Amino acid sequence: MSYGTSSEPVLSTGVTGEPMELAGSSAHRQLCTRPADDRGRVVINARGHLPQRTGEVDKILPGQLDTTRPGRDNRQRLEGRMKTLTKELWMEVPQRRAIVSIHNEVERLVAESDVTDGLALVNAMHITASVFINDNESGLHADYERWLEELVPFHAGSDPTTGGYLHNRTGEDNADAHHKRQIMGREVVVAITAGKLHLGPWEHIFYYEFDGRRRKRILVKIIGE
Amino acid sequence: MSYGTSSEPVLSTGVTGEPMELAGSSAHRQLCTRPADDRGRVVINARGHLPQRTGEVDKILPGQLDTTRPGRDNRQRLEGRMKTLTKELWMEVPQRRAIVSIHNEVERLVAESDVTDGLALVNAMHITASVFINDNESGLHADYERWLEELVPFHAGSDPTTGGYLHNRTGEDNADAHHKRQIMGREVVVAITAGKLHLGPWEHIFYYEFDGRRRKRILVKIIGE
Amino acid sequence: MSYGTSSEPVLSTGVTGEPMELAGSSAHRQLCTRPADDRGRVVINARGHLPQRTGEVDKILPGQLDTTRPGRDNRQRLEGRMKTLTKELWMEVPQRRAIVSIHNEVERLVAESDVTDGLALVNAMHITASVFINDNESGLHADYERWLEELVPFHAGSDPTTGGYLHNRTGEDNADAHHKRQIMGREVVVAITAGKLHLGPWEHIFYYEFDGRRRKRILVKIIGE
Repeated sequence: MSYGTSSEPVLSTGVTGEPMELAGSSAHRQLCTRPADDRGRVVINARGHLPQRTGEVDKILPGQLDTTRPGRDNRQRLEGRMKTLTKELWMEVPQRRAIVSIHNEVERLVAESDVTDGLALVNAMHITASVFINDNESGLHADYERWLEELVPFHAGSDPTTGGYLHNRTGEDNADAHHKRQIMGREVVVAITAGKLHLGPWEHIFYYEFDGRRRKRILVKIIGE
Repeated sequence: MSYGTSSEPVLSTGVTGEPMELAGSSAHRQLCTRPADDRGRVVINARGHLPQRTGEVDKILPGQLDTTRPGRDNRQRLEGRMKTLTKELWMEVPQRRAIVSIHNEVERLVAESDVTDGLALVNAMHITASVFINDNESGLHADYERWLEELVPFHAGSDPTTGGYLHNRTGEDNADAHHKRQIMGREVVVAITAGKLHLGPWEHIFYYEFDGRRRKRILVKIIGE
Repeated sequence: MSYGTSSEPVLSTGVTGEPMELAGSSAHRQLCTRPADDRGRVVINARGHLPQRTGEVDKILPGQLDTTRPGRDNRQRLEGRMKTLTKELWMEVPQRRAIVSIHNEVERLVAESDVTDGLALVNAMHITASVFINDNESGLHADYERWLEELVPFHAGSDPTTGGYLHNRTGEDNADAHHKRQIMGREVVVAITAGKLHLGPWEHIFYYEFDGRRRKRILVKIIGE
């Protein structure tokens, strides 16, 4: 599997100071096929031409770990004091929009942090993407897509009188993405109790890409004791 | 007053390791009638058939503490280090939707935590409910109800071409609730300064139930010194 | 420049225990003209009569530091333990609505806090304003204005059957502001790594005023080590 031709979202988890997993290695494939398959992640076709009326989706994609690019990170375990873990996850979604589970990766980082009691901040580092918590159910994800497109439709133009956005005067066509991200939110803050994410039974952490087809980052910052 | 027949929202605050208050006891009644009476909490009638045009509400309900069920919790006060308090509050709203003040309870937990400087995370542990901060004013709460119903109407069906939601193919009828919660948000993070919630004069912490009639939890996680 | 007659948003950063900068002093003017000029901040004309169809804006205003009024604050640097910094920023926007950058001020407070690893909470202390992170681009800000006005139009009346809001029965005319703030959010939580805000390349911290023409506060709370 080559990332250059992959059509699946790619999540990088390189950790400074730890051995990197190699793309295509067995460790990598194991990560790719892990528990991702039973997650309902929906990807709408490019340029926002999503099938609004029917709720049909193009594809259900598994999440992937891309280990080709390390994130800026550090982990600090001061004696008897606050512990922190900082990790940037790299994400590449080959479609314009997609919902990708990052739940297991955040769970893994909490274990790695050795924090038993504290907070985990998980935020998109890009302003056309969200991190949110909701149901791991593909029908709902398609509903979100349709709903967000109704609230703030994709339009590449820059003339508001014809449905465009002034932001697109900059040469971008992603003004709608900057709006959708405000609805779904930039970040979640999750409690850590007894060394684990302290979540309700159906809470699941997702990354929502509104303007993909390029590498972006998600930040996980854990502090506690 | 029996919880089985109560039509009021019920908030449980059982604390492991502390004596439980008994339902129906004088302590309980005191909690029930505490400062809740002057709060404008609005409950719309069941199944989302709220009076959209008039903004009329069925009922103004007081908040209630239900002490019959303890939440998972812990409190840690390490010597000279970070302190934490973790508490799950149980909530049961007998209607489909309601706004319930949890402000006093969060305030009480901050005092109990003994944290003078830190952060309090308050989040819904269920994905069809919100925790938010806004005005303690019943007219506004009715406005929210009408507005959210316009942005994402209740519909029990699963066919998007007739106003339904794909999520409801799962057998649920609460897809609208998963959307409304994204508008109002999952969580608030509030500063603690000088041992108290550090809030503006009109900031008030609420739980917003979008799919009630069952027990749900709210998490309060406090960390600091 | 006198604040009484100023038509520009005013941000106060008084720090207890530190020398106050004087309004009109050279230090103050320096702050006023600092990097604010190239920020696209949009102010819509008063009372919500914004030009919905064209996206035209009245004015691009620079941000300003108002040092005439200190905020409640403290800074704690316990030996070898958690550090905190608490600062209230005072803001006065002379128009009804405006987007004002508070990015540099938050950056400065992080440096002042001496926290190298931790979290910064930045929240509006008023319930008709938001703190959010998105692009520092004036066209987008005008798009936001037009979009929010479509989602929840300004109306001074209190009769929902004619477009008003029940909240306005209280004598206020700002019900729309309480709704807009829910879309854009109350707060952001930002990681601090290596002594700096840990943000993506385009993340910029803004205050969004939805009901200005009076003094309001923003809280910055920093905790970490």
